[in-house]
Amino acid sequence: MNEIKIFSPATVANVSCGYDVLGFCLDTKGDEMIIRKTKEKGVKITKIVGAELPFETKNNVAGVAALAILDAANADFGVEVEIYKNIKPGSGVGSSSASASGTVFAINELLGRPFNKQQLTLFGMKGEAVASGVEHADNVAPGIFGGFTLVKSLEPLKIVQLPTPSELYATVIHPQIEIKTSEARNILPDEIPLSNAIKQWANLGSLISGLYTDNYELIADSLHDHIVEPYRSQLIPHFKEVREAAIKNGALGCGISGSGPSVFALSKGVEMAHNVADAMNTVYSNTEIEFDIYVSKINTEGIKIIHKK
Amino acid sequence: MNEIKIFSPATVANVSCGYDVLGFCLDTKGDEMIIRKTKEKGVKITKIVGAELPFETKNNVAGVAALAILDAANADFGVEVEIYKNIKPGSGVGSSSASASGTVFAINELLGRPFNKQQLTLFGMKGEAVASGVEHADNVAPGIFGGFTLVKSLEPLKIVQLPTPSELYATVIHPQIEIKTSEARNILPDEIPLSNAIKQWANLGSLISGLYTDNYELIADSLHDHIVEPYRSQLIPHFKEVREAAIKNGALGCGISGSGPSVFALSKGVEMAHNVADAMNTVYSNTEIEFDIYVSKINTEGIKIIHKK
Repeated sequence: MNEIKIFSPATVANVSCGYDVLGFCLDTKGDEMIIRKTKEKGVKITKIVGAELPFETKNNVAGVAALAILDAANADFGVEVEIYKNIKPGSGVGSSSASASGTVFAINELLGRPFNKQQLTLFGMKGEAVASGVEHADNVAPGIFGGFTLVKSLEPLKIVQLPTPSELYATVIHPQIEIKTSEARNILPDEIPLSNAIKQWANLGSLISGLYTDNYELIADSLHDHIVEPYRSQLIPHFKEVREAAIKNGALGCGISGSGPSVFALSKGVEMAHNVADAMNTVYSNTEIEFDIYVSKINTEGIKIIHKK
Repeated sequence: MNEIKIFSPATVANVSCGYDVLGFCLDTKGDEMIIRKTKEKGVKITKIVGAELPFETKNNVAGVAALAILDAANADFGVEVEIYKNIKPGSGVGSSSASASGTVFAINELLGRPFNKQQLTLFGMKGEAVASGVEHADNVAPGIFGGFTLVKSLEPLKIVQLPTPSELYATVIHPQIEIKTSEARNILPDEIPLSNAIKQWANLGSLISGLYTDNYELIADSLHDHIVEPYRSQLIPHFKEVREAAIKNGALGCGISGSGPSVFALSKGVEMAHNVADAMNTVYSNTEIEFDIYVSKINTEGIKIIHKK
């Protein structure tokens, strides 16, 4: 195999009650990438379509992730990388992570799959750090593992794969405003009330129980964020109305995707997810803000191979 | 049926990473109680063996719990209650809770089971409040439901029953010192670092995943307490040595039971649990403190009926 084309999906991190640890993988939104073996070692970004991103390997998320895996494998070849961005950078659904995790997944295939998913997540995190300054796994892991993932710890990296109830669908709205990651981070307090922390871990515990038992009622009852949402929702115009409209129209829950500005909802069944999309649409149609809405099943496979040759 | 005799087990609350929400039920340690119908309405505590506890109905945990359920059922009879305490009050394994939950379970049987487990937990909490001043469910719920339980919320009360891996055994050591509940509570901070809270909910999430998947390695990896143990362990002499000895001798994890002074360990298999008991024994045998150690399987049934007539 000399060339592989992949679909690298968008991902939703935090998921209301799982700040910094929980994430899930989308299916209808994602980038495409072509990775080609080259005789010359090293990594060249040869094409970027759909976004303005740096071509210099060391400044590019995909470039750094590619170097990390090629280096670890002591590969006798290099790669050239074409990136077809469909996930807008800064939209809050793991745009940089999709580039990073897609690259390492693809190169692992070209290498004959020497690395497991946990190792691929580590390489992907190296790329992710170029964009965010920190090695996060909450978007990289659901892209590579698929479905719902729990980042149990970063050092050492331990990812727990969680089950996905089959009727679970996501609706995502992306209000096209800019939230600086630094602002989203600085708005959070260093200390939180113990009483709120208890509510949060009770909800995360019951959400995970709900995922294992296909208990949609329990999932709905658990999708609350007592820690981050009260702060970050201030940065997203009309968040409360969107959330209210989603819940009122049948969503199990609704919260901020990653650090925003995208907002996700989870629903039981694709029909409900479309009703929620309509309700979100109505809220934002009354504003000046451009936006984009999509419905997706939860992607339990993660990154997908489009072709190999 | 006019009389029922039950076994009401001891319970372990908090379980390292599940402060205020998680608990499990023991099997070898528990009280016995006889509850007998009387023509006269109301509740009489007629016998208390094994502990000095108030006989006045309104000051007795079992008495208050009994009144709560009889009142809710609008019962046309009263009860007399005999309590054979085997769980020492103040030992940290749900002594008051066992009296409360045992009473409501037994009276529900005498009534013909009109109430479900969640409702029984609510009645039990009324009794528990007599002892602790607050309506807690983290010991009442595992006694009534059996196995592992998650108190998802108190208002409204929602209990999530979790699965119990079949080879899981507990070892409990009770150092016979007094810790005042008020002291155990006041030693905790009102605010905690967000970074520690994240570690705690990551661990609770992975522990629950481990319970669903019989993953003993993941359970072991999750049984850490970043929130409460650093404070409360100061109140328990030799806690660190006991913990180290337990882990070194094969325990999956070891932490404070409830607010102490009892310390619990979880092990895979009864043999390992006995090894852990020996190791704990060695630590405390070198001190002046009296102590008591027991091994128990996790009791998935909860309160048990000894006889009815």
